[in-house]
Amino acid sequence: MFGSSIGNIFKVTTWGESHGKAVGVVVDGCPAGLPLTEEDIQIFLNRRKPGQSPYSTPRSEADQVEILSGVFEKKTTGTPISMLVWNKTARSSDYSEIAGYYRPGHADYTFDEKFGFRDYRGGGRSSGRETIGRVAAGAIASKFLDSLGIKLQAYTHSIGPIMIDETNKDLSEIYNNPLNMPDASAALKAEALLREMMTAKDSIGGIVDCEVTGLPVGIGDPVFEKLDANLAKAMMSIGAVKGVEIGDGFQAAFAYGSENNDAFYMENDCVSKKTNHAGGTLGGMSDGSPLRIRVAIKPTPSIFQSQETVNKQGENIQIQIKGRHDPVIVPRAVVVVESMAAMTIMDGLLANMTSRMDRILKFYETL
Amino acid sequence: MFGSSIGNIFKVTTWGESHGKAVGVVVDGCPAGLPLTEEDIQIFLNRRKPGQSPYSTPRSEADQVEILSGVFEKKTTGTPISMLVWNKTARSSDYSEIAGYYRPGHADYTFDEKFGFRDYRGGGRSSGRETIGRVAAGAIASKFLDSLGIKLQAYTHSIGPIMIDETNKDLSEIYNNPLNMPDASAALKAEALLREMMTAKDSIGGIVDCEVTGLPVGIGDPVFEKLDANLAKAMMSIGAVKGVEIGDGFQAAFAYGSENNDAFYMENDCVSKKTNHAGGTLGGMSDGSPLRIRVAIKPTPSIFQSQETVNKQGENIQIQIKGRHDPVIVPRAVVVVESMAAMTIMDGLLANMTSRMDRILKFYETL
Amino acid sequence: MFGSSIGNIFKVTTWGESHGKAVGVVVDGCPAGLPLTEEDIQIFLNRRKPGQSPYSTPRSEADQVEILSGVFEKKTTGTPISMLVWNKTARSSDYSEIAGYYRPGHADYTFDEKFGFRDYRGGGRSSGRETIGRVAAGAIASKFLDSLGIKLQAYTHSIGPIMIDETNKDLSEIYNNPLNMPDASAALKAEALLREMMTAKDSIGGIVDCEVTGLPVGIGDPVFEKLDANLAKAMMSIGAVKGVEIGDGFQAAFAYGSENNDAFYMENDCVSKKTNHAGGTLGGMSDGSPLRIRVAIKPTPSIFQSQETVNKQGENIQIQIKGRHDPVIVPRAVVVVESMAAMTIMDGLLANMTSRMDRILKFYETL
Amino acid sequence: MFGSSIGNIFKVTTWGESHGKAVGVVVDGCPAGLPLTEEDIQIFLNRRKPGQSPYSTPRSEADQVEILSGVFEKKTTGTPISMLVWNKTARSSDYSEIAGYYRPGHADYTFDEKFGFRDYRGGGRSSGRETIGRVAAGAIASKFLDSLGIKLQAYTHSIGPIMIDETNKDLSEIYNNPLNMPDASAALKAEALLREMMTAKDSIGGIVDCEVTGLPVGIGDPVFEKLDANLAKAMMSIGAVKGVEIGDGFQAAFAYGSENNDAFYMENDCVSKKTNHAGGTLGGMSDGSPLRIRVAIKPTPSIFQSQETVNKQGENIQIQIKGRHDPVIVPRAVVVVESMAAMTIMDGLLANMTSRMDRILKFYETL
Repeated sequence: MFGSSIGNIFKVTTWGESHGKAVGVVVDGCPAGLPLTEEDIQIFLNRRKPGQSPYSTPRSEADQVEILSGVFEKKTTGTPISMLVWNKTARSSDYSEIAGYYRPGHADYTFDEKFGFRDYRGGGRSSGRETIGRVAAGAIASKFLDSLGIKLQAYTHSIGPIMIDETNKDLSEIYNNPLNMPDASAALKAEALLREMMTAKDSIGGIVDCEVTGLPVGIGDPVFEKLDANLAKAMMSIGAVKGVEIGDGFQAAFAYGSENNDAFYMENDCVSKKTNHAGGTLGGMSDGSPLRIRVAIKPTPSIFQSQETVNKQGENIQIQIKGRHDPVIVPRAVVVVESMAAMTIMDGLLANMTSRMDRILKFYETL
Repeated sequence: MFGSSIGNIFKVTTWGESHGKAVGVVVDGCPAGLPLTEEDIQIFLNRRKPGQSPYSTPRSEADQVEILSGVFEKKTTGTPISMLVWNKTARSSDYSEIAGYYRPGHADYTFDEKFGFRDYRGGGRSSGRETIGRVAAGAIASKFLDSLGIKLQAYTHSIGPIMIDETNKDLSEIYNNPLNMPDASAALKAEALLREMMTAKDSIGGIVDCEVTGLPVGIGDPVFEKLDANLAKAMMSIGAVKGVEIGDGFQAAFAYGSENNDAFYMENDCVSKKTNHAGGTLGGMSDGSPLRIRVAIKPTPSIFQSQETVNKQGENIQIQIKGRHDPVIVPRAVVVVESMAAMTIMDGLLANMTSRMDRILKFYETL
Repeated sequence: MFGSSIGNIFKVTTWGESHGKAVGVVVDGCPAGLPLTEEDIQIFLNRRKPGQSPYSTPRSEADQVEILSGVFEKKTTGTPISMLVWNKTARSSDYSEIAGYYRPGHADYTFDEKFGFRDYRGGGRSSGRETIGRVAAGAIASKFLDSLGIKLQAYTHSIGPIMIDETNKDLSEIYNNPLNMPDASAALKAEALLREMMTAKDSIGGIVDCEVTGLPVGIGDPVFEKLDANLAKAMMSIGAVKGVEIGDGFQAAFAYGSENNDAFYMENDCVSKKTNHAGGTLGGMSDGSPLRIRVAIKPTPSIFQSQETVNKQGENIQIQIKGRHDPVIVPRAVVVVESMAAMTIMDGLLANMTSRMDRILKFYETL
Repeated sequence: MFGSSIGNIFKVTTWGESHGKAVGVVVDGCPAGLPLTEEDIQIFLNRRKPGQSPYSTPRSEADQVEILSGVFEKKTTGTPISMLVWNKTARSSDYSEIAGYYRPGHADYTFDEKFGFRDYRGGGRSSGRETIGRVAAGAIASKFLDSLGIKLQAYTHSIGPIMIDETNKDLSEIYNNPLNMPDASAALKAEALLREMMTAKDSIGGIVDCEVTGLPVGIGDPVFEKLDANLAKAMMSIGAVKGVEIGDGFQAAFAYGSENNDAFYMENDCVSKKTNHAGGTLGGMSDGSPLRIRVAIKPTPSIFQSQETVNKQGENIQIQIKGRHDPVIVPRAVVVVESMAAMTIMDGLLANMTSRMDRILKFYETL
C-alpha cells in the first residue's frame, strides 16, 4: 500500500477524498530558491476547475489553493511544500444511495474488496478531485522546467471520432474553446457531439496529446527508469487513462525499420533528427527532439441511463445514477496530463545530474 | 540513476552488458519456501533464446543460467536470488566500427551524451541481452503466481499488418510456430512477410498481447501504484515498446460510456462482469476479470540498408550496419512481456497483504 | 533531497515550519479498518505539548490536531491520512534578529549553505515542532500495534548525571512527574538540577529509554533492513539525538562472549532466552524478547548565556539568544522516541507478512 | 522483505550465503567515468580477508573479486557494477550439526521463525562473508570520494577494556598491527588479551572509530534523511554492531549546553568551529568539520565453551561449537565500518546536487 506517492527525487504525495474536509498534496524534493506563489498554483488549478463549460459539472467550487509550508519570502526553501484545497460544497446526501451498490466502470467494487469498506461519497479517493494535488504539484514542476527553457503543452486531440486536423492545428486556440482543442472548427463539431451525448444520457471518450520542447539530451535512465517508462506509469495512474503512446506508438507496430528509424544529421553544429517517429526518446533517454505523448481516455463511467449492476447483498439490480457528471472527461484531463508529464520530467532531470563524474567534479569544485 | 531496479517488495535488479563477462539479475523479496531449480529458470530463458528460427539471430549461445544464492535444498530461502548467464560467443570485433557513430533508432547517441562514453560492443547495456535478467526473474514470479492459481500467457498478436484472427485463436498453437502466434495460418503469412523483410534488408514491428487469469480482486493501489500504471511502466521499460494498452485501450477513446461500462452481475454467488472492456482493472485494482495487456513493438532498428547518420566528430555520414540482427523483435519479446507482467503482479499481490486490519489480525493471530 | 519521508510500507511524510501556517503529516500505507479518531492522536500530541511544566516553554499552544482525510466512520480507509496542527501563537518578531547569524548547535549555518537561504523563524524546518507530525503518526502506529498486543513505553532514563534507580523503577510514575521519569525520587533530584540550569542560563542533556513487549519473532530483515538498523535511523533522525543503543549497546564492547550470549531455553513450550543482552533482536530480526532501545539527547543548544559565533557577513560576533527555550529537551522527546519506535516496528511488521510461502498461500486461500 | 539494498542514488545490493556458490554485490547509480579496476576493489577486500593474523580464522580463501559489468576501458560506464567472489573452500560438513539447534547470539532461531527454514551452513546469509559485497561497494565509494578530496579512516579504538591512548594516536600505525589500532602499545596489550581469550575459549567485544575529512557543508537532509541518521542505519546494519554515536555521542547526554555547543568563528575567510562535539553534523547536514562516528561491536557469539540452548525439537540441550571462529570481530570490522560510511556519504553527496535552483541552473546552462 504505497499508493499515494510518485517520483524518486521530486516526490509528490497526494491525499484526500472527494467529500472529506480537504484534498491536498505534499511536494518533497523541490530545490530551494524557485520563485513560487499561490497564484502560480492557482493558474494551473483553474484549468481543471469544474463549471467552466456546459460540458462540465456545475459544482461551483472556488478550489482556492493554500500553501502551508516550504515557501518563504516567495521562494521555495527546499523543505516539503504542503498545499491544500478545502472541499466546500460537498453534498454527501447525493451519494448516500451509492453506498450500497457498485457503479459500473467505477472503483466501488474493487475498493470494497481490497479495503473492506469505502468512503463512498463522491467516489471518495477515486474521485477526480484527487487530481487537484497532482495539478498543484504539476504547477511547481512546470515553473521549474520553464526556468530551464523546457515547455509543455497538452491539449485535446480528439473527442470520440472528432479529431483535430493536424494541418489546421493552432496551439493558441487551446484556451479559446471549452474543450481545449487546438483547432476551433474541430472544437465546434465536438461540442455538438457532446450536446448529443447529454441528450442521450451518455458519455464519450477521447485522446489527449502532450508535447514537450527544450529538453536536454539524456534525461531518463537506460533500463527500468526510462523516461518513457516513467511517463507511461504517470499517465496510466490517471484514473480514466487506458492507453499510452510515445512517439508513433501503436503505428510503430505496423512500420518498417527503414521508415521508423529517425536519421541523425548535423544542424547548426548540433546532432538532430530528420524525423521524430521515436517521439523524443532513444533507449529510454531524451534525445533532444520534442517529446510526444498520447493518452487514451475512456468515457465518463457515470451516465444517466439505467444500468445493470449488483448490490452489496449480492443481488442483481437496476440503477440510475444521479448527481453532476460531465459527458466527457477529456478537456479537464488536459492539465492533469500536462502536470504528470511535468513532474516526471523534472524528476528525471534532477536524477540526471549525478550521471557523470566530469560534471559532478565540476559541480563540487565550483561551490 | 536508479535505472536497474524495479518493484517495491519483489525487487528485481538486472545488470550486465551484451559483451561484458556476463549478464544477470538479483531478485530480492521472494518469499521463502518456493520450490525453485535452475531448470525452472531455464525453461523461460529458452523461450527468448536466439537462433531458434530463421528469423532470429544465429548466435548459438547456450544461455545457461546459474543460481548463485538464495536457494537451498531446492527452495527459496527468503534471501536474494542471484542468477547469471555467461556471455560466451561475444565477438566484439563485429562492433568496433560502431564505436564512432550513432546508429539510428538506437541508444548510442543518448548514452554518449548522458554518460560521456559508452560500452559500444553489441549495444552494451541497451542490448536485448539485458532482458535475460528480466526473464529469469519472471520465471520465479510465474512460478509463485502459478502456486496461487494465477496464469499468464503472452503471444504475438500481429507482425506488421498480419494479425491473428480472434475467431481462430488457439493458445496451444503458440509454441508450434517460430513467431509465437496463437493462429497457425496467421503465422504462415507472417513468416512470408519476414522473408520479404530479410530480402529487402528491412525489418517490421508488431504487437504482443498478454492475458492473465485467476487474479484475486484488489491487487494494485488506488492512486499512483495502480496495477495498470505499474504494468504500463514495466512494459514501456522494455527496449522496443512504444505503446501500452489495458483492456480496450485506445478503442475506449472512441466508445460511448453506455458501451464501455462493464455491467456487474452475480454468477455462482460471485460478482462478475458481463463484458471486460476495462481489461481487468477498476480504479487501478484488479477486478477479478482476466487482465488484458497489449504492447506495441517497433521494428528492429538494426537494418542492413544504407542509412544516414552522424559520427562522433559531428559529420554527416552514410553507414551500413553489419552483424546479426532479427528482422523482427516481436517473437522474442513475448516471454519478456510475460515476465514483466508476472513480476509486476507478484509485487502487487505481496503489497496487497497489508491492506486490511481484519486480515492482518487474522494473519498474526494464527502464527 | 528525499528528506521528509520514512518507512517502506507504513510511510510517514512530515511537513511544516515552526512559524509557517501549520505543521502536519501524511501517513500512507495504514491498513483499512483501524478504529481512529482525532482524540487518539490528541492524547499523543498532548504528551509533547509545550507549557506543561516549569521546565518547558510557556508557548501556550493548543496544538489541536485535525484529521483531513483517510478516516471515514471512525475507521481508517486505507488511503492517506492527512493531519495538521495550525501554528497559532507564532511571534516571528522574536526571531528576526537571528536571521543574520548562526546560532551554535543549531542548523542555521548548514541550512544556509545547503539551500542558499532559510526560513529562520523559530528554527524553521529544524524546529522541534516538526515532531508534531511524527507523534501524530506514532499515535496511529501505536494504536495499530496495540491491537496486536504490542506495547511500547518510553521514559526519561537520566537528565545529566541524575539517573533513575533501576531497582526503584516504576513505570506507573512516568506521567506523575513533569520529567517523565519512572522513579519519583530521581525526578525530584533532576528537577532541582534543572532549576540550577535555568539560574545558570544553561541547559543539560539526558537519556531516553524505550521498551517494547509483545513483538512476534522475525520482524526486521537480515541485511540492510534490520529492525535495529531501522530503529537506529529513526532515532538518529530526531533532532537532538547523538547516540543509539540496542540492548547492552556500548557495554557489549566490553563484554566477553560467554556473558554477552543469551542462552536459549524452553519455557511453556516456547523458545525463550535466560538473559536479554541483545535487547530483543538477533541477526536484525526480533527474537521475542522485549526490545530495548536507548538514545542519548544533547543539551538544548539555545542557552541564554553570551555565545561566540559568526554572522552572514563573515564577522566574529557575540550573541545572546532570546525567546522561549527549555533547559532540557529530554522529557518532551520521550513521546517522540516512542513514536519513532512505533512506526518503525509497524513498518517491519507489515513487511514481514510476505516472508513465507506457506503463510502467503494460507492468506490468499482463505480470502 | 527489502532486506538487501541500501542507498537512494548510489544503491548497493548484496547477495550470497557463506557456503553458497559465491557472494557478491550489484552497485547501481555509480556515475560514469570513475576510473576503476579489480585491483581497486581487491585492496579493500584484502583488508577484511580472514587468515591475516593469529586472531582471525585460518580459512585461507583468496577472496579474489571479479567485476562482471559496468566497467569498460577501466572506467565505470554508469550502468550497474556487478562484482562477485567465489566461495572456494567451503566445508559444509563442519556445519551440518548446527542445522538442528539454535546457537546463542546467532540468527539461527530468528531465521527459522521468519522464513520457515534456513541455509544453516556457516551462518548462511548472516555470515560475515556477506560483508564482502559491502566492502567491494565501499571501495568504489571511497574512490569516488577521494576524487573530491574526501578521506575516510576507520580503526580499532578498543578491544574489551584496552583502548588506544588518544594522546598517543598515530594513524600510520593502523596497518602495522593485526588489530588495526593506531597505537602500537595498545595493540600489544590487546593482543595479549586476545591470547587469553583463546585460551579461555571465550571472545571479546570492542569499539571502532571512523573519521571523515574534507566533506563539503550541507551533505544530508534536514529531517529523516539526515546524514547522521543514515550513518546510524548503515552502521547498525553491520551484524555485530550494538551502538552508534556521532560526535560526543552518549557523552552529550551528560554535558551542559554551554560546553556542548561548538562556537563558530572565522578562519581564513571560512566559517569554522572552535570545537567539534557535534562530530561534523548540524541539523542532520555536514557542517564542514571532520565527521566522527563510533560503533560498539559485540563479542564473537561463536565461542568454544559449552553453552546451553534449545534444538528444533524444543528440547533444552548443551552444545559445543566447532569450526573456525575469531576471538574478536573488531579488527575485521574496521574496513566494513569504513565502507558503510563511504557509501552513505557518497549517496548523500549525490543527493545534495539537487538542493538549490542556482546550482541546478548553472549545471544545466553549462552542459
